Amino acid sequence: MFRASLALRRTFQPLSDRVLVSRMVSETKSAGGILLPGAEKPTNEGTVIAVGPGMLMENGSTSKMNVEVGDKVLLPEYGGTKVEMDGEEKFLYREMDILGKF
Amino acid sequence: MFRASLALRRTFQPLSDRVLVSRMVSETKSAGGILLPGAEKPTNEGTVIAVGPGMLMENGSTSKMNVEVGDKVLLPEYGGTKVEMDGEEKFLYREMDILGKF
Amino acid sequence: MFRASLALRRTFQPLSDRVLVSRMVSETKSAGGILLPGAEKPTNEGTVIAVGPGMLMENGSTSKMNVEVGDKVLLPEYGGTKVEMDGEEKFLYREMDILGKF
Amino acid sequence: MFRASLALRRTFQPLSDRVLVSRMVSETKSAGGILLPGAEKPTNEGTVIAVGPGMLMENGSTSKMNVEVGDKVLLPEYGGTKVEMDGEEKFLYREMDILGKF
Amino acid sequence: MFRASLALRRTFQPLSDRVLVSRMVSETKSAGGILLPGAEKPTNEGTVIAVGPGMLMENGSTSKMNVEVGDKVLLPEYGGTKVEMDGEEKFLYREMDILGKF
Amino acid sequence: MFRASLALRRTFQPLSDRVLVSRMVSETKSAGGILLPGAEKPTNEGTVIAVGPGMLMENGSTSKMNVEVGDKVLLPEYGGTKVEMDGEEKFLYREMDILGKF
Amino acid sequence: MFRASLALRRTFQPLSDRVLVSRMVSETKSAGGILLPGAEKPTNEGTVIAVGPGMLMENGSTSKMNVEVGDKVLLPEYGGTKVEMDGEEKFLYREMDILGKF
Repeated sequence: MFRASLALRRTFQPLSDRVLVSRMVSETKSAGGILLPGAEKPTNEGTVIAVGPGMLMENGSTSKMNVEVGDKVLLPEYGGTKVEMDGEEKFLYREMDILGKF
Repeated sequence: MFRASLALRRTFQPLSDRVLVSRMVSETKSAGGILLPGAEKPTNEGTVIAVGPGMLMENGSTSKMNVEVGDKVLLPEYGGTKVEMDGEEKFLYREMDILGKF
Repeated sequence: MFRASLALRRTFQPLSDRVLVSRMVSETKSAGGILLPGAEKPTNEGTVIAVGPGMLMENGSTSKMNVEVGDKVLLPEYGGTKVEMDGEEKFLYREMDILGKF
Repeated sequence: MFRASLALRRTFQPLSDRVLVSRMVSETKSAGGILLPGAEKPTNEGTVIAVGPGMLMENGSTSKMNVEVGDKVLLPEYGGTKVEMDGEEKFLYREMDILGKF
Repeated sequence: MFRASLALRRTFQPLSDRVLVSRMVSETKSAGGILLPGAEKPTNEGTVIAVGPGMLMENGSTSKMNVEVGDKVLLPEYGGTKVEMDGEEKFLYREMDILGKF
Repeated sequence: MFRASLALRRTFQPLSDRVLVSRMVSETKSAGGILLPGAEKPTNEGTVIAVGPGMLMENGSTSKMNVEVGDKVLLPEYGGTKVEMDGEEKFLYREMDILGKF
Repeated sequence: MFRASLALRRTFQPLSDRVLVSRMVSETKSAGGILLPGAEKPTNEGTVIAVGPGMLMENGSTSKMNVEVGDKVLLPEYGGTKVEMDGEEKFLYREMDILGKF
């Protein structure tokens, strides 16, 4: 669909210390070893696809971000904001809520 | 209506770090491709139409705003204050609640 | 009534970052175009009639006020303190709760 | 009563940014214009009778008080601590809760 | 009882901005003017018997205490921690909760 | 039991402004003056047995601790974390929650 | 399983002041002295296996971490985030929630 592919080309810039994450899904295989695509479910791991400029601190400076695009991150079980971008589910987290990176 | 058009010409200046946003509506077309105007509903995207001077920080300075008029922004599902201005629904957000921009 | 007019002459000085606002009422006209005074109701717009000196900041300074007497302001739907002054209803808002000005 | 008058002579020094206020009561007159003393009720106006030295700020300084003894003040409908001093009801407010002065 | 009198000689040093207070009790007299000791009840006045060194401030300094041993203080109706010391009820308050002194 | 005595020799270092306290128990004697060991119950007094390095302050420094090992302290009725160390119940308190020392 | 062992070789870097802990389990022996592996349960002690860079402070600096890899730590009864890493349960704690170390 042309409109969707156009949309995909838009870049998204998170604000503050927000981090846009694409969550990995778990693969499920049949007994015979065939991948079952309908049985995927999101895991608590993801890949960072966009990073905000940092959070505004009380002294007027901006916090340094500790994750960057491409990082594999461990996500909390709850929290995060689901956003539908270009037909795919992405998740926005405050950097302080991301547990760690691999 | 003369009075309304007069009102439209009033400029609105948000206070603090508030951002006035016009939310985009989704278009719905009939099976025959005809736009159905009554079926529009607001999306989580919008256009910034006015920006406050920034939030007062504890050290007396004012926060720098990271969005400007004309920016396309991603909005949170909840929050924001609906204001009726000149017969149209607009939304006011604190900048810190805006998720990101395109 | 002499006593009330005396009272009207008292000046009122809000404390901290409080702003005294006179809310505008909507006019309702009959089908024949006659103004119906009993049908007035307060709108979310008002006129600033007194402004406090600013809020005390943690560093000991006082916040600069961004509204002044005579400003037309947009008010939040909830909040504000109704005060009866000289027989009229006025509203006190913290400046941080005022949404913007026209 | 001798003991009470002695007590009245004690001075009371509020701590922090507290303000001791004597609330005004509304006068009620009979149809014939005679003052009905039992029908008095406290209004939201009062007179400052003692003022604390100021609130301790995070940076170790003390906040400057904006009201002084003798000021007529506008009081919030709720809040304040009723204290019985020398047989009379007085009210203690944090200065930040006092709405303004006349 | 020897053990109790020993205990009474222990000095108690409140921590932070805590203030140890001995609350005054109201005297009740019979119709004939005889003091009824069992009818005493604590009032909202007390005498300071020990004072902490001050509260730790965010900037690392210690807050200056505004009450000292021997001060007569006005206490809030609620709050304070009842501590039984040497068989007598004393009360610990944060200095910020003490309303004022006489 | 050998394993337990080994464990007792481990030193425990509280983190932040935590204080490890051994609470005193009240002694109960029979009518004949014999100590009843099963009737002991913890009092609100204790002895400090380990002290943390201090709490991290917002300005990056560490708070100075006001209690030291061996101090007799007055404990709040609620709060504190019961920890079983080497078969005995000890209690961890934030220093700010300890009421005072003797 | 090859995939799992690969995963085990990934290093995990906690963010902020988070600490990754492997909790110790209590051993249960049969009456005859035989270890019962199914009866293990986690204790409130653990070993630090990864440490974050420190928490972002309001003044822009990063908090110094007081625990390091290999430390034996005392954990709170509640709190902590269970994360399944490479088939094993680990726990993430904010450093401020760790009670102490041995």
